Amino acid sequence: MKFNWKVLFNILGVLLMFNGGFMLLSLLVSFFYEQSSWKAILASAGVSFLTGILTWWATRKQENKELRSKDGYLVVTLGWVLMSFFGSLPYIFSGTIPSYPDAFFESISGFTTTGATILTDIEAVSKDILFWRSLTQWIGGMGIIVLAVAILPILGIGGMQLFVAEAPGVTPDKLKPRIRDTAKRLWILYIGLTALETILLMLGGMSFYEAINHGLTTMATGGFSPKNASIAYYDSPYLQYVIIVFMFLAGTSFSLTYFAFKGAFNKVWQNEEFRYYLFSVGIIILISTLAIFIVSDASLEKSFRDAAFQVISVISTTGFITADYTAWAPLLTVIFFLLMFIGASAGSTAGGVKIVRHIVLIKNSILEMKRQVHPSAIIPVRLNGKAITQDITFNVLAFFIIYITIFAIGSVVLALIGVDFMTSVGAVATSLGNIGPGFGTVGPVDNFAHLPAAAKWVLSFLMLLGRLELFTVLILFTPYFWNRNV
Amino acid sequence: MKFNWKVLFNILGVLLMFNGGFMLLSLLVSFFYEQSSWKAILASAGVSFLTGILTWWATRKQENKELRSKDGYLVVTLGWVLMSFFGSLPYIFSGTIPSYPDAFFESISGFTTTGATILTDIEAVSKDILFWRSLTQWIGGMGIIVLAVAILPILGIGGMQLFVAEAPGVTPDKLKPRIRDTAKRLWILYIGLTALETILLMLGGMSFYEAINHGLTTMATGGFSPKNASIAYYDSPYLQYVIIVFMFLAGTSFSLTYFAFKGAFNKVWQNEEFRYYLFSVGIIILISTLAIFIVSDASLEKSFRDAAFQVISVISTTGFITADYTAWAPLLTVIFFLLMFIGASAGSTAGGVKIVRHIVLIKNSILEMKRQVHPSAIIPVRLNGKAITQDITFNVLAFFIIYITIFAIGSVVLALIGVDFMTSVGAVATSLGNIGPGFGTVGPVDNFAHLPAAAKWVLSFLMLLGRLELFTVLILFTPYFWNRNV
Repeated sequence: MKFNWKVLFNILGVLLMFNGGFMLLSLLVSFFYEQSSWKAILASAGVSFLTGILTWWATRKQENKELRSKDGYLVVTLGWVLMSFFGSLPYIFSGTIPSYPDAFFESISGFTTTGATILTDIEAVSKDILFWRSLTQWIGGMGIIVLAVAILPILGIGGMQLFVAEAPGVTPDKLKPRIRDTAKRLWILYIGLTALETILLMLGGMSFYEAINHGLTTMATGGFSPKNASIAYYDSPYLQYVIIVFMFLAGTSFSLTYFAFKGAFNKVWQNEEFRYYLFSVGIIILISTLAIFIVSDASLEKSFRDAAFQVISVISTTGFITADYTAWAPLLTVIFFLLMFIGASAGSTAGGVKIVRHIVLIKNSILEMKRQVHPSAIIPVRLNGKAITQDITFNVLAFFIIYITIFAIGSVVLALIGVDFMTSVGAVATSLGNIGPGFGTVGPVDNFAHLPAAAKWVLSFLMLLGRLELFTVLILFTPYFWNRNV
Repeated sequence: MKFNWKVLFNILGVLLMFNGGFMLLSLLVSFFYEQSSWKAILASAGVSFLTGILTWWATRKQENKELRSKDGYLVVTLGWVLMSFFGSLPYIFSGTIPSYPDAFFESISGFTTTGATILTDIEAVSKDILFWRSLTQWIGGMGIIVLAVAILPILGIGGMQLFVAEAPGVTPDKLKPRIRDTAKRLWILYIGLTALETILLMLGGMSFYEAINHGLTTMATGGFSPKNASIAYYDSPYLQYVIIVFMFLAGTSFSLTYFAFKGAFNKVWQNEEFRYYLFSVGIIILISTLAIFIVSDASLEKSFRDAAFQVISVISTTGFITADYTAWAPLLTVIFFLLMFIGASAGSTAGGVKIVRHIVLIKNSILEMKRQVHPSAIIPVRLNGKAITQDITFNVLAFFIIYITIFAIGSVVLALIGVDFMTSVGAVATSLGNIGPGFGTVGPVDNFAHLPAAAKWVLSFLMLLGRLELFTVLILFTPYFWNRNV
């Protein structure tokens, strides 16, 4: 099969036009706050929009409009890479980030909603550039929503099929015609929640500018903050609790939140992934609260708030910080390291392995013992009361094994570049899981600036891999994909 | 189904009689070197033998001699636990190790061929007790050989079926009648190689006592040494190279070594696991040699020798030491940490995940991409040129996921007990992989004495889990196993 390059590039052209359009929002910030970087942003918007419209124009005449799944892998991967490339232009043109590996790292860390930063003094950066930085995460989040409900399930990647049947307006037999509708509904919810959080943060005394920045990066589970100290800058329990709630929501399947808004709470409660999400977050917060309360002199409320904030921040892969989780007890270091491998719900903007896959892994592990006792029986994993096919289970198992393998290889590559053990494993775990802060010298109170350029390229690639559920990117490196006969 | 308790306990009785018999070998050391602990050893031998013979006597009349696979799991797990319990008596009776958690840890570390020690001054311990300590590993190694060729493949655990078809004298259709014969041949090989290594070490100037101790613990991939500094005590390149070669052999499937002795080298070379074993050991030694040569002022030969020794020691799960791998470059810390998750060949005395499983995991991960492109095709993993069943692949995947999960849970539990991050993950990885030395405060130049008693019990359990290929032990904790209707 040949690739449908025309349709493929046509879509990429449209994406770049959107990218240019979004940059104009930053231009509003430039003018409103009279910031100096407006020329850089205007130039970036121009370059992105012109490249987009030319690509779109050149490919507008198509004999065959059909996109096959092979084209899907390319659109998604190239889309994220191109957006990250054009998204890095404001940093370069404004002189904010002079080194290119740094600018690309910051940009892909935005579009993949990771939130790892190379900025050492964020507050010294102009407001319009910082707004663009927050916006990259929000755009990335929009992309993830459409990816999760519309693209990955069709490609059959890593058990994402499991979740799509639950999306609003989608019935398995009438999947395609409703996808546009589903994505639209979820996007409206995403926009609404961002606005709601912004208002709630302003009610707590945050300025409009800071509130909208945090609103954009919370709902995307991104975690970029315009403050050097992240949320630790705000000493207000109210603000921290608001962000805790919205990080949790951002890590919940948007389809479920949609149903909750429609009053269909039974759909939410019947969802096994949500129950596990709530339960695991609860139990880990409980353990962490006790550990913090015992080892520090904080009050019980402060211990709970710090525990809840950091646990939900890491599990939802947001990456905001109100306390340094690496400075607590050894128990918490181990727990937070493992949390990086959990990830929140499928169908949310969270990255990482995701709870639904862990449910399949755990159930399958226990059932494997049952299969040992009953060698001839066929014993499938059940989710939400339904048996799931062996193919999907197989795919989920392979996903996890590839995830762990990439984590191991990534750690070796970083160590090869000369990065120390804790920093290597921490940086790789946080990049692959799209979280943000790591361990060692890239911990919650540090940044990624001091890493060698080679390490930044490796981590940029890992963010992309993690964000696109591994297979979407990895498959491009196999001969099977490029085989013309298929 | 009821368990065949009579046959089960009859076998355990025989094992304890053998255990008592082996203790008499230590008694020879007591008399030959005029050591003071002979009373403790004699008493232990007596207790073990008497308990054994009484159990055997009480269960000698059996209506039904058939052992079903459910009995198999119990015999194996109880066998290892009972041997470890009775094997700890000489430490207690002689006063060498006064604390019981310590004595049991040392004993199960022996029988599982792990080699982690709680002795802070090994050279202060009497020769007969140290000989018993080495002997526990050698007995454990004998157990592993029979387990690998005769028991695990029948239970169908973690892909061990893959390897049994390759064992000498075994044809898949006539498995059972030849097992006794196969085990016997491999035991003779095991004994022969132990004797050969002892002689070669003596030729290099090692005393008979030290040579036989190292011979016993090399072939078992155990790693107990009567010297505090392990093999670093011996400054002789010859002695170190001899041990390098025998550690490599101990990590090779004994069936293959048997064929090599018979001159059937083509069988060795056609074995995919052996090729991967040789190749991965080679490439890791190469990288490590270069890294050591660059960061230290050692000669190229010394760099190579240190690299080869440590790499083969960890990958074969032996755990002897000539240099502190945690004190080298960060790259090597990461590599050695990952090496703990590899393990050598199935059918050797090595512990850990094992190369054959990694081959299946890697091949399946790549094929999963192919399956993504060809969703309707059935694409099996091939090993040694033959397709393996999906059930086995599934089991191998589940094995690895459970292994990683236990590693994670174990690390949290150790951290919960108050052990620091690096020590927790290092101690758990090395115990589960039956290696010996870990990282942090249980590194190659340290020991496990300072850990809390609770941590020692946890690590003892992990050694057992790892040694018995997880499933054998874990299945006992499931309701499926105890269901009387099956």
